[in-house]
Amino acid sequence: MTVATCDAIRELILAYQEFNPPNVNELEEQPSALEFMRYVAQNRPFVVRKGAAGWKACKEWDIPYLLSIMKDQKVQVAKTPFGNADAPLMTGDGMIFVKPFEEHEAFAQVLAALQAREQGTLLPHVKDPVCYAQTQNDNLRNEYGNLFADVPASVPFARIALQKEPDAINFWMGNSHSTTALHRDPYENIYVQVLGRKHFVLLPPVEAPCVNESDLPAATYAPVGCPAQCKQGGEGLDLLLEPKLDEPSSSVPFATWDPDLPDVRPTRFSHLSRPYRVTLDPGDMLYLPALWYHKVKQSCSEQGICVAVNYW
Amino acid sequence: MTVATCDAIRELILAYQEFNPPNVNELEEQPSALEFMRYVAQNRPFVVRKGAAGWKACKEWDIPYLLSIMKDQKVQVAKTPFGNADAPLMTGDGMIFVKPFEEHEAFAQVLAALQAREQGTLLPHVKDPVCYAQTQNDNLRNEYGNLFADVPASVPFARIALQKEPDAINFWMGNSHSTTALHRDPYENIYVQVLGRKHFVLLPPVEAPCVNESDLPAATYAPVGCPAQCKQGGEGLDLLLEPKLDEPSSSVPFATWDPDLPDVRPTRFSHLSRPYRVTLDPGDMLYLPALWYHKVKQSCSEQGICVAVNYW
Repeated sequence: MTVATCDAIRELILAYQEFNPPNVNELEEQPSALEFMRYVAQNRPFVVRKGAAGWKACKEWDIPYLLSIMKDQKVQVAKTPFGNADAPLMTGDGMIFVKPFEEHEAFAQVLAALQAREQGTLLPHVKDPVCYAQTQNDNLRNEYGNLFADVPASVPFARIALQKEPDAINFWMGNSHSTTALHRDPYENIYVQVLGRKHFVLLPPVEAPCVNESDLPAATYAPVGCPAQCKQGGEGLDLLLEPKLDEPSSSVPFATWDPDLPDVRPTRFSHLSRPYRVTLDPGDMLYLPALWYHKVKQSCSEQGICVAVNYW
Repeated sequence: MTVATCDAIRELILAYQEFNPPNVNELEEQPSALEFMRYVAQNRPFVVRKGAAGWKACKEWDIPYLLSIMKDQKVQVAKTPFGNADAPLMTGDGMIFVKPFEEHEAFAQVLAALQAREQGTLLPHVKDPVCYAQTQNDNLRNEYGNLFADVPASVPFARIALQKEPDAINFWMGNSHSTTALHRDPYENIYVQVLGRKHFVLLPPVEAPCVNESDLPAATYAPVGCPAQCKQGGEGLDLLLEPKLDEPSSSVPFATWDPDLPDVRPTRFSHLSRPYRVTLDPGDMLYLPALWYHKVKQSCSEQGICVAVNYW
């Protein structure tokens, strides 16, 4: 990279920061389609505090209700040793990108595992995987279809502005042990917190040179020293997971810089980054524009779970 | 520039072309504010055919009317030898950026010079400058204020969507000898043709690597061999203009590639450019998004002038 190119990139990042507010706009009610489109045009996020507080999901969902609707329904669950699904992992052989071990289990079993781990009724040790129901394949209209009636079929301001129905509506259920690594999606995203709190760290697209995107060998967690049948879904609580490189081999371009550990693997631009931080409480709604980097941590409700819904 | 950077730029240009229509959208009526905002969000131009046909300007403006309103009003006029105001010029010492010689003359005098040159009643020779009333300093609310009542004070869909009044409203009057060189502006632009036709060549911002932007020494046309008083505005028809480098010296970053002469001064990316071409007839309205490159030629009405209005 030439000096002139570096200077140009630095100036672009600093100019963006100079001409934009340093925080995520907070609205008190859902915007009109036109107001929303202004945010889309500027590629700027906003939060609507209590914007979804009136949804049946936000008023009714709790553990007994979810169990009554979903108890024996098989759902897909991602399991990792450290809550690091779809994340970079440093190994003795260098950095890799690890996808979770995926199992299908009864909803009640997943919920119990999440609560137990969160509430410390198990002694945490390496054989307890961290579970996260985080499939992003329109699961709220499929596996979790019995809960779909509790949320709107679309977010009106977004449907009218973008002139389309949502591509996918997803249900997320995890606990505080799961972190979503810094990444970006090519979709406009409306994110609604239902139970627990989500802590977002956001970087605008112009800060792409800060995140140290690298091509990482792709791997997937798999059980170790485990009889074959445990791969078909065992108890889920006695599972030692280790990453195995995918075959055939492939690589994934992924951010390797973490805004919470700014001195680790920085690029020459990382120190310029000014991350936006925003926490969603139950009932809050976030518009996360396409191509914004986001890292997501969560803290749980008293019931020991975090639940959210998003629309793409 | 590394090979990887070149590949990335090429892919970006080709991806833009693949995912966007190859033409300027044509609307049959003015969009709503929300529809307009969708174009702004996508940074895409559109034409509203006959979108301004109902404006008093489009119905009433002709030479007698303009003369009756503006006859003795002094207006600023740009003069160049070849209709090349604010354009790159190749000289024996290399390429420079030349601004026009500016004079204040009575509107009737400017109009007569434009018509005469267009209709060939003068023998064209190098001493006949090409005139263009092209100040972009909100002139329709100042010098041309007597005509301002004939156009709307704002374009409603744009005012509502962007939540602001126009920064500037400009009146343009020239003839077919003037060409506006390929350049871009940091403003959202609504452009309305009133008399004559305008021929736009448009390049999306992603094609910036195609235009060979270079730092050019700034110069201004000045009269040669002319007594001092001619600088104060003489007849305007007997004026030999030559570029003089500005003092103190300065430079202007400017596109040096011309999509109509694609083999002259190309970059390694110019051959990838797919210019959009659109012609405005009287009453047509163009939305030219911020940062789109545009080159503009014009052809005249039977009355020998081209008149347009734009809102920034």
